[in-house]
Amino acid sequence: MEAFRIHNPTQIIFGKAQIAYLGSEMRKDGLQNCILIAGGGSIRKNGAYDQVINSLNQAGIRYTEAWGVQANPRLDKTRQIIDQAREFGAEAVLAVGGGSVIDTAKAVAAGMYLKDIWNAFIGKEIIKQALPLYTVLTLSGTGSEMNGNAVITNTNTHQKWGITSQFIYPRLSIIDPSLQYTLSFKQTANGAMDAISHILEFYFANERALSTLAINEALLQTITAMTDRLQKDPEDYVARANLAWSASLALNGLTGFGMNSGDWACHAIEHALSALHPEISHGEGLAVIFPAWIEYLSEKDPSRFQRWAKRVWDEDNIAQGVRRFRAKLQSWGLASSLRDLSIKPDELSQIVDIIMLNPNIGGVFKLSKEDLRLLLMLAY
Amino acid sequence: MEAFRIHNPTQIIFGKAQIAYLGSEMRKDGLQNCILIAGGGSIRKNGAYDQVINSLNQAGIRYTEAWGVQANPRLDKTRQIIDQAREFGAEAVLAVGGGSVIDTAKAVAAGMYLKDIWNAFIGKEIIKQALPLYTVLTLSGTGSEMNGNAVITNTNTHQKWGITSQFIYPRLSIIDPSLQYTLSFKQTANGAMDAISHILEFYFANERALSTLAINEALLQTITAMTDRLQKDPEDYVARANLAWSASLALNGLTGFGMNSGDWACHAIEHALSALHPEISHGEGLAVIFPAWIEYLSEKDPSRFQRWAKRVWDEDNIAQGVRRFRAKLQSWGLASSLRDLSIKPDELSQIVDIIMLNPNIGGVFKLSKEDLRLLLMLAY
Repeated sequence: MEAFRIHNPTQIIFGKAQIAYLGSEMRKDGLQNCILIAGGGSIRKNGAYDQVINSLNQAGIRYTEAWGVQANPRLDKTRQIIDQAREFGAEAVLAVGGGSVIDTAKAVAAGMYLKDIWNAFIGKEIIKQALPLYTVLTLSGTGSEMNGNAVITNTNTHQKWGITSQFIYPRLSIIDPSLQYTLSFKQTANGAMDAISHILEFYFANERALSTLAINEALLQTITAMTDRLQKDPEDYVARANLAWSASLALNGLTGFGMNSGDWACHAIEHALSALHPEISHGEGLAVIFPAWIEYLSEKDPSRFQRWAKRVWDEDNIAQGVRRFRAKLQSWGLASSLRDLSIKPDELSQIVDIIMLNPNIGGVFKLSKEDLRLLLMLAY
Repeated sequence: MEAFRIHNPTQIIFGKAQIAYLGSEMRKDGLQNCILIAGGGSIRKNGAYDQVINSLNQAGIRYTEAWGVQANPRLDKTRQIIDQAREFGAEAVLAVGGGSVIDTAKAVAAGMYLKDIWNAFIGKEIIKQALPLYTVLTLSGTGSEMNGNAVITNTNTHQKWGITSQFIYPRLSIIDPSLQYTLSFKQTANGAMDAISHILEFYFANERALSTLAINEALLQTITAMTDRLQKDPEDYVARANLAWSASLALNGLTGFGMNSGDWACHAIEHALSALHPEISHGEGLAVIFPAWIEYLSEKDPSRFQRWAKRVWDEDNIAQGVRRFRAKLQSWGLASSLRDLSIKPDELSQIVDIIMLNPNIGGVFKLSKEDLRLLLMLAY
């Protein structure tokens, strides 16, 4: 285990009907207004919007609303909201939604202090401050409610890239698992796969971080079992709550402790897929890529993958573990090949080129252009 | 799972030779001096003291030194250090040591702003601010390096009581596991038992917090396995590191998430034991009390204890799980009965009276005076 730092300043308020505290918490922090960022309208159906507005009004917090953030959130939309926030004189950013909304809100919070927010993604400007950020989570998976990461897509350049900064951790995130009752099972399963993938990006990185490995196995098992329960009953509160909390832990620092920053090749590959095809959901892209990545690498370096097969799937054999993993994802209705995602064979080399825009693929297991080509064939 | 809040602002720097960053981190926070609090001198042997002083000097941080904090740290000593800190004009508190030193430092940090620090323990004054606190940990177990709790003993009244406040979380804790190479195995095992007990205080509190239960099992297994390794080789870095990090997680909020604040009867009982007999170490007192508590309560409400026996000890039967637990603690050389701790039979009723100074014993399983009497007999 190498030297490691962890500092997660986000406050979490977790449970039913906890949105009521939002306004008074913002007041305590000395705020008088915010820009509320949202997606396409699901927060009107699940009740989050009304609860948020009530709480803001009761605390006397003024707000302007910015709607229309899409899945795989876009740079042009982010820039537009930054303009709106400046015009309004926003003192804080409030995200009400899932990971795309929260990621957009983070980019807005930091972008207020930059010439252009995209500069932060490509390393041309450094984030040194940001507006205070509050979130109300309505879809668990990305973990964005409890970390300092954001991913935005530049549709002009096909770059789906990320920023990481201590300044964009939410100050407060409210997680009411009952808001997720109205999600389709497909959305729930996509979120679960996203959380699983965050854990797996770290899991194979260091065989000696035994406490982290054991915690990660506990979370992988819990997420899988809770998703199975939600497939039967979407209003199973215990399953919603445990899945939501596991997804927050999956990318809040805990699962990466002692893990040398993780691998992240699968995320880079998936980001290329959905940069080219924005209709592909992040979770579904990962469901295709991750089993193929394990299959591909386990032939080269089996020892790390054997523990995973044994502890997570109770299988002595890696191939059998991969088979169980794929079968579980299929049972949740997720795609299991690039073909399922309607990728054309002649797009594969273009996908490899997009991945190689950032040529440093795989923090633990470096992947060459040839590795990527073979891996995508395996996933096809 | 009921509504729950979590907010842990402590930054952790973890790994070998990381103390070097201490001074510059304090400088970044705008500090120019601190009061350094320490115990009886072990930090001179393990190298922590020299590394700390070097780092402070390099950063130009002035300091005064307050030595002599004992295990089961005392109120009179705390008051004396507060006087010294006031006289020096301390801007920050720096604890270099184990849990007793860190707890004293927390009480000093808060006590600077109170008429008398003991008022905070008995509810007469509320902690509203504290000096910024930095810690360098040299003995893992209490978890004090990453939470807002402190326990101090008032030897006049036999009260070993605690405070909890958001203001006494360390701003930064540096954990270098290699500093613990020089501990005796007895000290290591006491710390491990303390960490195990923190997890168990939460573990039985809620059967539906499935993510937390799974994490807690992962930590219990890791702590046990690492302690076994350290019994063979005290300089096993991987075991030191994983034990240290597990002990920090055991009481930093993670293991209590969704657990209704835990039970804490065993801690209350142990605090009475060591208030009466300060020579009893906290970990050893807990090694006697916890198995007896499980034995006593499992007859009244078996379902919660069955999962523990199965998942932690791979036993279908609770009594067999308790036997395995006790045997493990004995194999580490810890006491297994009140008799081993040299408690006299005629002291039991006095111990019950001290426990009942705070009559609210057991957050989940309420214990009456009669329960306590029977439980102590079982532990005798």
